[in-house]
This record gives sequence, structure tokens and C-alpha cells, in this order.
Amino acid sequence: MNFEFPFQELPAVMRGPRVERRRVLLGGSAFWGTMQDDGQLRLDDGRLLDAEAQTYLPPVSPSKIIAVHISYSSRSMETRNKPKPTETPTYFTKPPTSLNGHKGQILKPADCKYLNYEGEYAVVIGRTCRNVTPDEAWDCIEGFCPALDMGLQDFRDTDQGSMLRVKGADTLLPIGPGIVRGVNLFAQTLRTTVDGLTVQEAHIGEETIWGPHYVIADIARHITLVPGDVILMGTPCHSRSVDPGHVVACEITGIGRVEGTVVAIDAPRAAALGVGHMPTDTPEVRRVALGFDERVPEQFKANLRAAKGLQA
Amino acid sequence: MNFEFPFQELPAVMRGPRVERRRVLLGGSAFWGTMQDDGQLRLDDGRLLDAEAQTYLPPVSPSKIIAVHISYSSRSMETRNKPKPTETPTYFTKPPTSLNGHKGQILKPADCKYLNYEGEYAVVIGRTCRNVTPDEAWDCIEGFCPALDMGLQDFRDTDQGSMLRVKGADTLLPIGPGIVRGVNLFAQTLRTTVDGLTVQEAHIGEETIWGPHYVIADIARHITLVPGDVILMGTPCHSRSVDPGHVVACEITGIGRVEGTVVAIDAPRAAALGVGHMPTDTPEVRRVALGFDERVPEQFKANLRAAKGLQA
Amino acid sequence: MNFEFPFQELPAVMRGPRVERRRVLLGGSAFWGTMQDDGQLRLDDGRLLDAEAQTYLPPVSPSKIIAVHISYSSRSMETRNKPKPTETPTYFTKPPTSLNGHKGQILKPADCKYLNYEGEYAVVIGRTCRNVTPDEAWDCIEGFCPALDMGLQDFRDTDQGSMLRVKGADTLLPIGPGIVRGVNLFAQTLRTTVDGLTVQEAHIGEETIWGPHYVIADIARHITLVPGDVILMGTPCHSRSVDPGHVVACEITGIGRVEGTVVAIDAPRAAALGVGHMPTDTPEVRRVALGFDERVPEQFKANLRAAKGLQA
Amino acid sequence: MNFEFPFQELPAVMRGPRVERRRVLLGGSAFWGTMQDDGQLRLDDGRLLDAEAQTYLPPVSPSKIIAVHISYSSRSMETRNKPKPTETPTYFTKPPTSLNGHKGQILKPADCKYLNYEGEYAVVIGRTCRNVTPDEAWDCIEGFCPALDMGLQDFRDTDQGSMLRVKGADTLLPIGPGIVRGVNLFAQTLRTTVDGLTVQEAHIGEETIWGPHYVIADIARHITLVPGDVILMGTPCHSRSVDPGHVVACEITGIGRVEGTVVAIDAPRAAALGVGHMPTDTPEVRRVALGFDERVPEQFKANLRAAKGLQA
Repeated sequence: MNFEFPFQELPAVMRGPRVERRRVLLGGSAFWGTMQDDGQLRLDDGRLLDAEAQTYLPPVSPSKIIAVHISYSSRSMETRNKPKPTETPTYFTKPPTSLNGHKGQILKPADCKYLNYEGEYAVVIGRTCRNVTPDEAWDCIEGFCPALDMGLQDFRDTDQGSMLRVKGADTLLPIGPGIVRGVNLFAQTLRTTVDGLTVQEAHIGEETIWGPHYVIADIARHITLVPGDVILMGTPCHSRSVDPGHVVACEITGIGRVEGTVVAIDAPRAAALGVGHMPTDTPEVRRVALGFDERVPEQFKANLRAAKGLQA
Repeated sequence: MNFEFPFQELPAVMRGPRVERRRVLLGGSAFWGTMQDDGQLRLDDGRLLDAEAQTYLPPVSPSKIIAVHISYSSRSMETRNKPKPTETPTYFTKPPTSLNGHKGQILKPADCKYLNYEGEYAVVIGRTCRNVTPDEAWDCIEGFCPALDMGLQDFRDTDQGSMLRVKGADTLLPIGPGIVRGVNLFAQTLRTTVDGLTVQEAHIGEETIWGPHYVIADIARHITLVPGDVILMGTPCHSRSVDPGHVVACEITGIGRVEGTVVAIDAPRAAALGVGHMPTDTPEVRRVALGFDERVPEQFKANLRAAKGLQA
Repeated sequence: MNFEFPFQELPAVMRGPRVERRRVLLGGSAFWGTMQDDGQLRLDDGRLLDAEAQTYLPPVSPSKIIAVHISYSSRSMETRNKPKPTETPTYFTKPPTSLNGHKGQILKPADCKYLNYEGEYAVVIGRTCRNVTPDEAWDCIEGFCPALDMGLQDFRDTDQGSMLRVKGADTLLPIGPGIVRGVNLFAQTLRTTVDGLTVQEAHIGEETIWGPHYVIADIARHITLVPGDVILMGTPCHSRSVDPGHVVACEITGIGRVEGTVVAIDAPRAAALGVGHMPTDTPEVRRVALGFDERVPEQFKANLRAAKGLQA
Repeated sequence: MNFEFPFQELPAVMRGPRVERRRVLLGGSAFWGTMQDDGQLRLDDGRLLDAEAQTYLPPVSPSKIIAVHISYSSRSMETRNKPKPTETPTYFTKPPTSLNGHKGQILKPADCKYLNYEGEYAVVIGRTCRNVTPDEAWDCIEGFCPALDMGLQDFRDTDQGSMLRVKGADTLLPIGPGIVRGVNLFAQTLRTTVDGLTVQEAHIGEETIWGPHYVIADIARHITLVPGDVILMGTPCHSRSVDPGHVVACEITGIGRVEGTVVAIDAPRAAALGVGHMPTDTPEVRRVALGFDERVPEQFKANLRAAKGLQA
């Protein structure tokens, strides 16, 4: 058994040809289609569409969404966790109501200050999976998607680590626009941008601590994964907060690009009644929301300042 | 037990106040909201939207969609069926993939000529329902929606009456934009329009042969209805065919208005290979697609001719 | 393109090795497992079970179930339809609430007389499928299941051919116990038994008029098939009625065997109120329920008489 | 607004008459029924069954399952958390694959030592719910179920507090057998038993820190709850570990009783390969798994020792 990189032989889901399947809303109906070499989207019913002009739905309908806390060495270094092999991955979940599509609105309630981006790739499960080895796990993967694991860090100091409110609020998971097969994931580079400026970047093969096969085998020791389930594979260093109006995107070479726009909404009515843990601005919240600048490349920090209209 | 109209007392689902729930796609996420008195849509998260400017999803996610063949006296007369009480209702089904939202695209394949409209109201099931009486059936209704039960009549003479291909093709069920409670259905008037001209019209209370309570009790004799299931309640006289570019709408006073636009698509690839029953133009097809003009009000016929740009 | 039998090369879903996946209820949880060569069921969590002693759930959760009216030459002959190639297949649907598992109870209401068996194989869709050719359709098939398409023929003369009440009542689709890949479907023989006596039999390759690839390509001309959808492929000659206490089974060599027991239930309450079309015993009902004995092998008729305790 | 107990007026979901809906598997089909006064289960199709002899399915199909960490004063005291009003509730999630029915098998892998029980009541959401006040939240509740929030505490020191592996493994949520309306939840007493001996007990009204209306309003500030979603309302003091063969039950007066049997399974195959965090027996694990005996009534401790065959 081998779950180290690089591979002797690529698993089938990473071998070509590349296939990207997207789901769009046209009028009031959802349609699946396949991306063409010229960048157009061919719907299964035969129509050829300008892919840029479409309304995208999430290409997944998961019964569960599991996220890796930390799976990139740069993020591990930034947050003072140790790199492999002395640790094992840890997980949290996002509810299906957090799903959002490409070009989605990412909601920031008026009483929250810290809405952080985290560019990631998602793994989509293609078949029922339980009690598998890492080698076997590859066959359970349908494909990969770009994703943004957004978080309301104002709630960082509640929920005792489950991050339900940090990561689980409505709209906090833009994903898509497509599910992609036939691409060597470990040869790709992931970038997160804010208003077009790069704020996170990682070569997936070089930075990944645990691959999706390892993560699937780990989770499936005790939990059955079913077709459509989604695993979010963690983010590289420099997760930071953004504000209404910012366009956040995660772009992965060979896979695609998903973006969302931060939109302000009113504080919830129950908040005015004092119900529940209020958004806070404690040192723990700021530690995570604002990060550890000394361990992050200068360019990312400069780009984020520029996106925020701040002076260097 | 009483399943006759008028009612001594309105069932709860028809008693006020009126509540209309709609589901929209904003960015890439679906949101539920409630219509306000001023015509705006208040999303549950607090945002107030211009209801006219939204992208609507079907407000239902049914596990099954059952349709009444004929439930209006004018349609019964037109098609030579006898009015009550000598007959009982009959049914067919549409698959969930036929669902379409308000302002949807209604697809007409290039090899089909007869895409007929049928304006209807839909009943949405709110709770599990089996083996009930008509009186009990009212409590199983979540609400009502406008709907268009479109049909590719070119396939009328295949499928031995199940109408799978006539009524079951993708996009042939525009429904919504909302689910409405608190309105006396039997005091309402249903109109179907083509490019704004009325081509069907019926006062629901006066024309209905069997109410939804009767139909639910009938079906639920042998089939369990589950929350979200949809029943289409039939159409009045003058179902006729429309062409690409036509905007078809079903408007029901007190309930709402759903519209769709007919869009041309290519003939399916398998058709070129001779697979399956080909669209036909037989007398039986024409009988249903073109209808019985002698039993339809002159104005409806004139309006349809006008919508089609035909001379009187 | 070729959609004739025999094949030059078997499609992947029919090439070995054979894999059979089953879903059982243990305590109150559903578990998937794989059949072993020794006839035991290996759950994914590692447990090895006596396959005979299990409680089976349907191995499918379809969004739609489409059934071919007639796809066997013996059935076509029996019912006076013409064999290919002068006709094309026709379809009806069954709602998801008709699903039943292996060893299920098949309900026969007290006011019905004619509950007919139809042994069939089912095709399970494995990927989204629209606008495909017959050649491409093979890749959309996840596997095959034995199935019993039971029908309450007392309602044959209502619903204008859709057979919603005939075929759509709760429990009328025992299916499973497994989904099977890696078996040459066209080399198999299907048998239906009543109390162990063979009452239907067909060599699938010799009797099939249209293969599943043709049927999928036909339906997917206008209707999107989605993963999990089920297509019932028709029955050979000698569909007849059975009574409470009878054990009906469909056994397909290489695929498996599903059985159900006919159980009497009370007539629905609404029937006593005169709601809906009553079960009838008209010539049309009897024509289908009792069949055309002159075109059926003597042995099948003799076996059914024996199962019913009737003298020859 | 009032979210304190006792109530001036009971919300509708707690006002009589009591209605309990259960879902059973008969043969291979699921059926809903209503409990009768004499303890029999009346299926919707009319059959009257011995409720004790049935195979129960979970009465819920949630898209998400959210659990309150601590909502009872005795549990809060035991674990050194402070009672209200100085704190707010915190949450974690369980995936749908953790669902189990009444009389289910609760799986304990061979490499785990600490499978802890937590008797709870569950709240089932009946309508879409977002941005509500506690007063409004009552209308979103469909009913209540007994539940066992089982946990593999061997994984307590991984997942950084999300408890995905502690609480999320397959089978760790026996729930049911029914959903109950029309009972004053706050007048009831919850008891957890092991082999019939009481090991947890709490009067819900006296011990509850936050009611379900508060919890719903809190969660729905940012997360849309949809029909069928389940909220687990926390457990009283004395959550402890049990072993294969133990029958664990949660009984709530007026609501019902759910039980499960602990069953041993092999360690997962990936564990032998060193994949993932291994079950551990650290002080933190033992702190939670074994609890704080000084703050727990003597009788509960004595009963658990007796169930385990240990001497006093």
C-alpha cells in the first residue's frame, strides 16, 4: 500500500481526458452540460451556451459536507501546527444549507466583522464508501471542484471547536462551477484572489500534507460516505477577512475558478433579543480572523491591503 | 361527510390570512421568502427584494407529480367526456425532471409541432396521507400554486395513454412562483394567456368537477402521498399548441401567475438514428393538439389566432 | 451504430467480474454490502452475514421509475401486439412509493380481485443521461436487479392507459435484493414462480425486442435520467393474478431472485364513501387480468393452477 | 417576548391531544402509522399491528442534525460549565449516516473502549425556519422524539472539538420510535437505562437551561432549518461508557422509549495501515468518557456498576 506522493501511476480520476460537468439554471429549470474545448458549455440537450453568461447552481447535492481543518504545510506552519507525519488530519462539518454556486452572494450579517476566505479544492464522492484503504479510496472519487470555505470568525470562540456558526451559516460554501475528472490534481496550483489580487497560493502537490485518498480512508473508518458527499480539503496560509463588495475567488489550474461576492445583510432579529452567543472581538477571534502575518509571503499581504484600499 | 361545493365552512388551508411563500435563486443559493402586501418579497433572512426582478425556482421538490386528466366541466364537454356524477377522475404522472420555475424556458424540439398549453392549479401535499376521507384530505394540503401542464402532443399516439412523452419531457411543468395558503380557491378564476391574450378561462368553483379533497382521497386509497408531492388539477377547455417565442402564462386570481417562454431546441440525436416512436401528425394527434373548436368560446380562438399572428 | 443483439463486444456493465451490492436493515440502520462467492453478505463495515437471514431494503432510491409496456416477443404475441421492427416501445411510470424490498409484503385490498405478477429485470441508472445514442447509453447503466411489476388489474379500465392505480399502488414493486454488474444479461433466463412453481419463463437474449440501451436512448430523447432512476424492462407472457398467501418470485440466472408475499388488507375507507373509480370486473379487466391462455405454454398454466390449488 | 419557563400558555406543539407517528418496515416497504390508546400501531393503510413486534425505521430523514453540547443544569454542573444565564448554548453536528432506529445495533469497533450513552430528546423541524424569534420558533416544531446521542469517546482528543468521529460514526443516533406532538415537554422526565437500570434522570422542565424555541432561534440566526431537520437537546449528568451486549435506552414520560444494543465490530481496515488518528486513552479522553463521579447521584453510579457486573 502506498499513500505517498508522487504516484507511480495516476489513479483513474486523475487520468485524462479532462471532463468538466456543470449545472446551470436556465429559466426555472436546472440543466447539466459538459464544457467544450472552446470554453462553451454544451448542455446535454444539445444547446451550446456562452459559459461565462450562465447562472450556476452548485454541481453537488451532498448529504454531508466534511472539511479538513488543516491539510497544507503553509497553513500548518502559519497556525503553529506541526507538519506531517507527527499529526493526523482533523475535521469539522458544514450543513447542506451552506452551499452556494459560482457567482454567489456570500452573506455578511451587520453584526459580524470577520468574514474570512479560504480557497480550497473539494472532493466529490462517487460511490458508497466505508472501511476502505487509501489505495481503494481513489475509486470512490467522482471528481474535484474549486470551493471557498468562508467563515464568520466572529463566532470563533463559541461552539467549542465545531465551528457550526463560523463555517455553517447560509451561503458560506461557494462551489463549482464544475466537477472535473481527468486532471492530475497534484500538478495544479490553487490561488485565492480578492478583487483579482492573489491572497493565497499553493502548489497542491508540494504543499499537501494528506491527499484525498488518505482523508477518505480516514473518515470512512467509521462513517459511510455516500454518492454526492463533499470533502473540503483545507486551505493554504493567509486566510483573512473580507468586506461587502469584495469579489473573492478560488482558482485552481486545470480545475476551474469559483467566485462569490460579499453582500451585507441585516443582523438577525433574534440577536436584538439577546438570543445566542453574540459576535465577539476577543483575542482568540482576532488571532484566527487576522492571522499570523509574520509567516505569510509579503505579496499576499500587500495584495489584500490593496484590495481593501489600504495603504502599504 | 360532504365533498360537495359550496362549503359550509372553509377548510383551514383556504381561510385567511393569505400567505405566499416563494423560493428564489440569488447568486448561487436558494432562499425562501414571503410576499408582502406591497408586492415585494421579504426573504427569511430579512432582505426585501423587488419580486418582479427575481430568478425563481420551483417552490416544490416533489417525489411524485400526479395529474388529473379532466376536472373542469368545460374541458369535459370539449373532449366529449361526460360531466359528473357518472364518471370518476383519472390520472397520469409527470416525472420530477419536468419541473420548471416561473419565467422558465419551455423546450420544443425541432422535430415536434404540437406543444400544447394547459393552465392549471397545483395542490402541494403538506403531510403524509394515505387512506383518508375527502373531509380529512384538506388537512394534508400545504397550499396551491399556478402551473402550466405543457404537452408535446406529437407523441399523443404512443405510450398507450400514459402520456409519458407527451407530458413528461424536461421543462414541461412551469410552477409557482409561490405556494399560497389562506385563499378560497373556489372563489377564484383561472386564466391562461399567450402573449398576454386570454386563451383559457374558468371560474374554479363553478367549473370544478372534483375538488382537491376528493382527488387526494381517491389517490390515497392505494398510494401514499408524502410532503411535497404535487397534484395537478386539470385544465379548462381550449388547450392548444404554441410556438417558439410565445410567452404562455397561467394566472389565478388570489393565487398568482406563472409564465414560461417557448424555446426551440434541436431534435434529439437518437431521433436521427431512428430510435423510438417518431413525432407524428396523425388524426388522433391533431384531434387533441388542435382540439374541438366548435365547443370553445369564440374569443379564446380569436385571441390565439392573434397571438399567432394569424388573420381571423 | 449498432443496437442489435448479439454483441461484438460486451459493454462494460456486462463484463465480469460479477459484483452484487445489497442493502440491509440491521437493527434500525441501513447497511450496504457485497455478496461473497460463498453466498454470504460482507457488509462494508466488515461484518459477514448469512445473506438468507437478512431484512432487505430496496437497493435503489429512484427519483423516477419508468416501465416498458411490452419488450418480450412472447408477451407481444400473447397480447396481439406485433413483434419488432414495426413498433416502438411504450412506457408508463410507477411512483417511488410503490417500492418494496426482497421478501416484501405485496398488499391486495379487500375490494380487489386481480393482483397480477410480472417478473422483470430492472435497469438502474448510474449517471445523468440525456440525448444519448444507444451505444452511449450502456455507460449510463449502474447495474441490473430482479423485480416484480405487480398490478391491481381491477383498475385496468380507468386512468385512460396510465395505469397509475393498476401499477402504482404502495408495495407493488418488489426489487432486489441486489444491484448486479458484470453479468451478460442477454445470456440469462428469467423465471417467475408462484409458490415455487414456474409460471413465466424467458431467455432474455432470445426474447428481448428492445435492449436497455435502446430504451434509455429512447426515453432520454426528451427526459433526463438521473442516477438512481429505475427502468423496468417488461415481462414475458403469462402475467396472471395471485391471491393472499401466495409467494411470488422473479429469478434471473446470474442476477438473483426477489420474492414477495401477497397480503390482504382492508378496502380503503374512502371506497366505502363512493370516492373514486371502484374496482371492476369488466371484460377489459378480465382480458388483461386473466390473459390469453391459448398463446401460453401449457406447463405455465398447469403450474399456476397447482399453486392455486385448482384441479387440472 | 418570553423564552422563560413556565409558560403562560402552552405552544400548539405541546397542547393535546397527544399524537404519535411511527414508521415501520414491513417486508421491504416502509409504512407510517399512528399509535392507538391501547398501545397498538394503526398503519395508515388500516392494518392494526402489535407495536412491540415491529421493525422500526428512524421517523426522520433530516438534511442536518445539530446537537446542543450542554443544555441541562446537572450536566453543566458535572462538567464544570456554569449554569445560565451567563452562557449561551454551543453546538456540534452529526451526519445523517449516524441515524439509527428503535432497537438498533450500536456499533463499537474493536479498537475503541469508550462508547458513551447520552439520553436526549430530539426536536424535529416541521417548516422552513430562518431569522425567527424564540416565540415564533415554536411553530417550526413538528414534534419530539426520544434519542440516544452515542459517542466514541476514544476520539475525544482529535477533531479539535467538532467531535465528528466521537459523535458522527454510523449507528450512533438511535431515534424514535415515534414523533410526538401534543405533550407538555416541560412536564416530562427523561431517563436513560442500561440493561433496565436507570443511569441518567432529569425532569426536563426543572433541569433545562435553554428550551427548543431558544435553540432554534439561536441557530436560525444564520442557518436555515428545513423540514425534517433534527436538533438534539443535550443530556443530563452521568454520560458513561457501555460495552457490547448492553441494551441502552432513553425513556421520556409521555414521549416514548428508544433503545439500542451495543454490538462489537472489527477495527476498520485502514486502522491497521496506520491511517488517521488512533483511538486513545489519554487523560482528556478518560475525563469525558469516565466523567466526574463526585457530582453524580450515587444511585446512577451503582446502577451502572450493576449493569456492568461490577461489585459496589
